[in-house]
Amino acid sequence: MKITNKQWIYTERPSGQIGEEHYKLNVEELNSDNLNEGEVLVKALYLSVDPYMRIQQSTHNTWEKPHSLGIVQGGGMVGEVIASRSTKLKNGDFVNCYKGWQQFAIVQENEARLLNPEVAPISTALGVLGMPARVAYFGLLEAGKLKKEDTVVVSGAAGAVGSTVVQIAKIKGCKVIGIAGTQEKLDFLTDELGADAVINYKEHRSLEEMTAALNNAAPNGIDVYYDNVGGVITDAVFNLINHKARILICGQISQYNHGLETPELGPRFLHKMLYTRATIQGILSRDYNDRMEEMLAEMGPWLKEGKLKYKETILDGFDNLPKALAGMFEGVNTGKMIVKV
Amino acid sequence: MKITNKQWIYTERPSGQIGEEHYKLNVEELNSDNLNEGEVLVKALYLSVDPYMRIQQSTHNTWEKPHSLGIVQGGGMVGEVIASRSTKLKNGDFVNCYKGWQQFAIVQENEARLLNPEVAPISTALGVLGMPARVAYFGLLEAGKLKKEDTVVVSGAAGAVGSTVVQIAKIKGCKVIGIAGTQEKLDFLTDELGADAVINYKEHRSLEEMTAALNNAAPNGIDVYYDNVGGVITDAVFNLINHKARILICGQISQYNHGLETPELGPRFLHKMLYTRATIQGILSRDYNDRMEEMLAEMGPWLKEGKLKYKETILDGFDNLPKALAGMFEGVNTGKMIVKV
Repeated sequence: MKITNKQWIYTERPSGQIGEEHYKLNVEELNSDNLNEGEVLVKALYLSVDPYMRIQQSTHNTWEKPHSLGIVQGGGMVGEVIASRSTKLKNGDFVNCYKGWQQFAIVQENEARLLNPEVAPISTALGVLGMPARVAYFGLLEAGKLKKEDTVVVSGAAGAVGSTVVQIAKIKGCKVIGIAGTQEKLDFLTDELGADAVINYKEHRSLEEMTAALNNAAPNGIDVYYDNVGGVITDAVFNLINHKARILICGQISQYNHGLETPELGPRFLHKMLYTRATIQGILSRDYNDRMEEMLAEMGPWLKEGKLKYKETILDGFDNLPKALAGMFEGVNTGKMIVKV
Repeated sequence: MKITNKQWIYTERPSGQIGEEHYKLNVEELNSDNLNEGEVLVKALYLSVDPYMRIQQSTHNTWEKPHSLGIVQGGGMVGEVIASRSTKLKNGDFVNCYKGWQQFAIVQENEARLLNPEVAPISTALGVLGMPARVAYFGLLEAGKLKKEDTVVVSGAAGAVGSTVVQIAKIKGCKVIGIAGTQEKLDFLTDELGADAVINYKEHRSLEEMTAALNNAAPNGIDVYYDNVGGVITDAVFNLINHKARILICGQISQYNHGLETPELGPRFLHKMLYTRATIQGILSRDYNDRMEEMLAEMGPWLKEGKLKYKETILDGFDNLPKALAGMFEGVNTGKMIVKV
């Protein structure tokens, strides 16, 4: 069977904002009769856009070499097996794999994770039970050594990672302050996720204002800061960290579109590490790749029981992928940003 | 017995550089006949000046409330017991205590640590076997999780803490790069302490130049950075940290005299924590106060065997104390800065 496969090819490195102009659409022909043993053909149903993509587009090495030009934009995929030469995966199975922005992909059986649609909607494999959840869960609990009654501040709190962090911290008995940029997001954080306090960062643009807002929300100081954003929010947090505070750097989304190669300037804060003997640690989801089952064993039941909620911002249409990625840096999404193919 | 006691009183907070104008000399009378049970009268022989003093002079709370005005400048003292109502300490004993910048002090027996002059010269209780050594030893080995063959960069490498860090790392089998500001200090680091490479930061003032110099000295990247200085040196280190690097913030001496309240600006670097999953940790000597014996058990023999060397910059004369403190921020000392009373 011959199949026409549309792909988004990453063609040009952005110097600032990422956009459609850094991609081109490609069309190729796939033939499902050419599958090798152990391979399946997957039809994409949901494709992921994530902030980390912008980092990989840096010209510098980051956690790996820069994303190559002229190839399909890498990314998570949830799809359906439509042809199989695998004994493990059969037609109709839903899988999660990392095959990037294309409508179809030939996948080795060991590159695909079988999804159970009875546990949760399959799109959650890109969000609340997938990569973002993994870094939320292990980052907060293991790297962050979360303790009951910690005061936890989360930036980017309404995003895929942040909204999961907020809920895990609440489930574990912490006081949680969420920071986001629209009233809709703040309402989601308080009304649905149970955040104890919220701050709209757009109303507190200066270091002094953000410090005052945080101080108001966390009068006893900050024990854990889960940072997805960076910039002024993070500067302000350093003014309020407690003894032995744990600062987790999961993202710096405010910095990606303007300055990974020539960073912004910000106030030097390292002397504050002395006063507090705090720790700062970078965390990446991939460091916990092999612990998916451990996470699902705790988080799957939370989801079933309604303790763990999630939101998805789903854009319809394969052609919208670059637009969806760009939009994320403007904060258009609440929860996980996904494109439905 | 009546004794005239000269004291340096801390009278005014510096907004920038600390100097004599922030102190005044006071003279009081002590009467050794007034000792209570368990107290001794100590005659100061060596008084300590240390970079942390400038932090305590901040108007903000740091690891404790700001140093009060109108009292004796706090600091380490090595002295001789000249009168005693203690059963543990007798006349002629040498002790280390924290009684600040004065010629005599009444000391509770449990506030004084008895020194054995046969282990090492008693002035080392302020340096290579004292407070600076403690944060060097536990900071590097415990917080820094030092491993054999790590590449270790030390800023302020010729100071009391730095010169100890350099030697511990060498003894433990690491490659060590020391950064200091004069040829004399660099020679000390290579010729006497065995540093594998040295960098004169005054010859590499820009981020690009310092990055190039470090890259040249550490072509395989940096595993451990022991920071006493901050500023451009530290910015450059972030360009070269390896996966799972450990960054220890022991001091930020370049920042103390101009900007703890209104910090300098520097390039934002937190996104690099993501790439590397590095950790940054603030360390203070006081966190290891109760582990002095453990440290002396390992470092005392090193000193006896000549594996561990030290230098002291000793200024003569009680009246020179404020000058000695100010001089340290200009880099006049190699090794521990001490005033001989």
